[in-house]
Amino acid sequence: MRVYMDYNATTPLEPEVIQAMTEAMQEAWGNPSSPYPEGQKAKGVIAASREAVALMLGGRPQDIVFTSGGTESNNLVIHSAVKHFQNTQAPEGSVGEQQSPREVARPHIVTCTVEHDSIRLPLEHLVEEQVAEVTFVPVSKVSGQAEAEDIMAAVRPTTCLVTIMLANNETGVVMPVSEISQRVKTLNQKRAASGLPRVLVHTDAAQMVGKRHVDVEDLGVDFLTIVGHKFYGPRIGALYVRGLGKLTPLYPMLFGGGQERNFRPGTENTPMIAGLGKAAELVTKNCEAYEAHMRDVRDYLEERLEAEFGRKRVHLNSCFPGAERLPNTCNFSIRGPRLQGYLVLAQCQTLLASVGASCHSDHGDRPSPVLLSCGVPFDVARNALRLSVGRSTTRADVDLAVQDLKQAVAQLEGQA
Amino acid sequence: MRVYMDYNATTPLEPEVIQAMTEAMQEAWGNPSSPYPEGQKAKGVIAASREAVALMLGGRPQDIVFTSGGTESNNLVIHSAVKHFQNTQAPEGSVGEQQSPREVARPHIVTCTVEHDSIRLPLEHLVEEQVAEVTFVPVSKVSGQAEAEDIMAAVRPTTCLVTIMLANNETGVVMPVSEISQRVKTLNQKRAASGLPRVLVHTDAAQMVGKRHVDVEDLGVDFLTIVGHKFYGPRIGALYVRGLGKLTPLYPMLFGGGQERNFRPGTENTPMIAGLGKAAELVTKNCEAYEAHMRDVRDYLEERLEAEFGRKRVHLNSCFPGAERLPNTCNFSIRGPRLQGYLVLAQCQTLLASVGASCHSDHGDRPSPVLLSCGVPFDVARNALRLSVGRSTTRADVDLAVQDLKQAVAQLEGQA
Repeated sequence: MRVYMDYNATTPLEPEVIQAMTEAMQEAWGNPSSPYPEGQKAKGVIAASREAVALMLGGRPQDIVFTSGGTESNNLVIHSAVKHFQNTQAPEGSVGEQQSPREVARPHIVTCTVEHDSIRLPLEHLVEEQVAEVTFVPVSKVSGQAEAEDIMAAVRPTTCLVTIMLANNETGVVMPVSEISQRVKTLNQKRAASGLPRVLVHTDAAQMVGKRHVDVEDLGVDFLTIVGHKFYGPRIGALYVRGLGKLTPLYPMLFGGGQERNFRPGTENTPMIAGLGKAAELVTKNCEAYEAHMRDVRDYLEERLEAEFGRKRVHLNSCFPGAERLPNTCNFSIRGPRLQGYLVLAQCQTLLASVGASCHSDHGDRPSPVLLSCGVPFDVARNALRLSVGRSTTRADVDLAVQDLKQAVAQLEGQA
Repeated sequence: MRVYMDYNATTPLEPEVIQAMTEAMQEAWGNPSSPYPEGQKAKGVIAASREAVALMLGGRPQDIVFTSGGTESNNLVIHSAVKHFQNTQAPEGSVGEQQSPREVARPHIVTCTVEHDSIRLPLEHLVEEQVAEVTFVPVSKVSGQAEAEDIMAAVRPTTCLVTIMLANNETGVVMPVSEISQRVKTLNQKRAASGLPRVLVHTDAAQMVGKRHVDVEDLGVDFLTIVGHKFYGPRIGALYVRGLGKLTPLYPMLFGGGQERNFRPGTENTPMIAGLGKAAELVTKNCEAYEAHMRDVRDYLEERLEAEFGRKRVHLNSCFPGAERLPNTCNFSIRGPRLQGYLVLAQCQTLLASVGASCHSDHGDRPSPVLLSCGVPFDVARNALRLSVGRSTTRADVDLAVQDLKQAVAQLEGQA
């Protein structure tokens, strides 16, 4: 008997999603570029999925580009913003004096200190390569959020992109992306008047989709990343681009056979795209119910933790005053000298969870940099566990998990 | 009743491949980076697939990187060769005089005129951006091949990469990649002595895998691209890199969570990778049988075409003296003023085929640039049809297809 509470790492596929993928594998295997019915059937499947994804996000189908996953979507946005700056701010054969490359300003990007590696690392790489400058704005130690005020203060004349995740994968804290977009929009009007480049706004919505309502109009962003396997869909992703190629520029990273209107060539992965469409359809239909269910179970989990271990002993690392958070995420620490998160998990018999982002699962003994950024004290952060519940997690699962944690803590304390 | 003869465009999935993928979707959905059994199971599936792919190619598992497809693999090789040249030929803080960027030599790449768009277009993009120089070596009008002599003659002191496809997707002509690799190897020894950069060798084996034996040791290449959906596998790809990161450099295009040893981050697409492994396993086991069967059926097709339309009227565009070719590909033209390939296909009731690469299916009325490069006369190239048979194509299918072509030609000539 196992209780999986690591739905922020990945989710199982919904049976309807598996069915859609299997059907596409069997029946829509033609090359979507082929003009005969086998190809056109695949093309139709892709078009329907694009509509389902767009509907889920409140966007237009023509503004959706399918990608191989969130990592590609995030890298593509950064690449695109930098290229656009280079192409528009330092045009070849510009009138007037010839500038040497050293004198041409580098594009500047604003982000925050708790982004996923697929944002942080490409940005660090650009800094190393001296291609761009980046400001990593610290999140507030009070709210756990990247605050709009701080983001705006970091914007420079050369800023080409602000990229802030919609919800953090470890704490679940929801970032004020709408507010940031609005303020950037106002700023862009002033910048246009002074000939400064437009600041594009991107949000990585990997953790939010399927947990809370995501609407690109409410958010006002230019780019939004979605990741199928975080919402019971397949391991591909998509990128929303507002007015793709017209209002908002997108510079491809790959060149090839012209698929996705040249923005992302490569023969389309029809079955995966079919699965993503089905997963999106389920979210559109059921998101409120998913949210209510997960919130109920997660809140029950937090009650039970406090009841079993005592309010003083349990530190809820994801509760920040004034900040909203994901309905499914509970990041907490049980205080005690030998209760580091990875030790507790290793003693668990039933519970499957993590101490932070799964791509860092090999650094379990170091406290999460995300929690430290949010102001969680070192000794508390070291003991952190991230439990994230899913659509099918029950109160009975919570009881088992809490029982298991009690047993694990008792073991570790007994070993003292 | 339809007869599909466009297996060079894409192939259906083998039932065993669908089964492997469905099983992985149901049972190996954990995040491969998660340390608990659900994650480790997925990790195991990926490791087994890596071994199956390596075995198929005669390479080592640690030299295989999974990618989203052939387009990504090809773009990654080009990116990597250019980056490596830039990093090693123009080191920062080099001893001696400061070179301005304008004086630093650009990397040079050698390829041929009949490559797939996922090679041609990224190279043209680098030329446009003034990042690299490229020589597109014409293929021989006698052999249809990129000849080793011509390739070697195009190599310059600044050449960093030679990339030649293993077999052409339209004509099926097999390129002399082993010979090119050997000659580059000999040249590299001399170049090393004079301090010139090593020339890397890449082959895009998309069309060859599953049709003829592919062995990276025989070929002697540094990089080799494989594409699952061309051999009854899923729509992902892989890249073989000889001595990955040690003997042969690979510079990632994406940055993120560290998967694929940082060479290709992003949560692994376990089901697709499982399917690729199964497809590779089938090729390892059955390639000779597949080849013999396809050759038999294709040769029968050519016999029947000549018998029905007359030897003089049928021009076999893929038969070049002295050049080997894929066992499944038949590119031919039926001579006549109104028999352009796209018109003939449009009249077909049963046969599903193409006039060239499927990504160009919207340019049906122009003759294939590949055929023109190979010396096929304009009027003949305009009438070309590409029929490519598969593992399950039968002689009865051939009879139906030829009958259908006769009917189509009669229709078109009757309309005159």
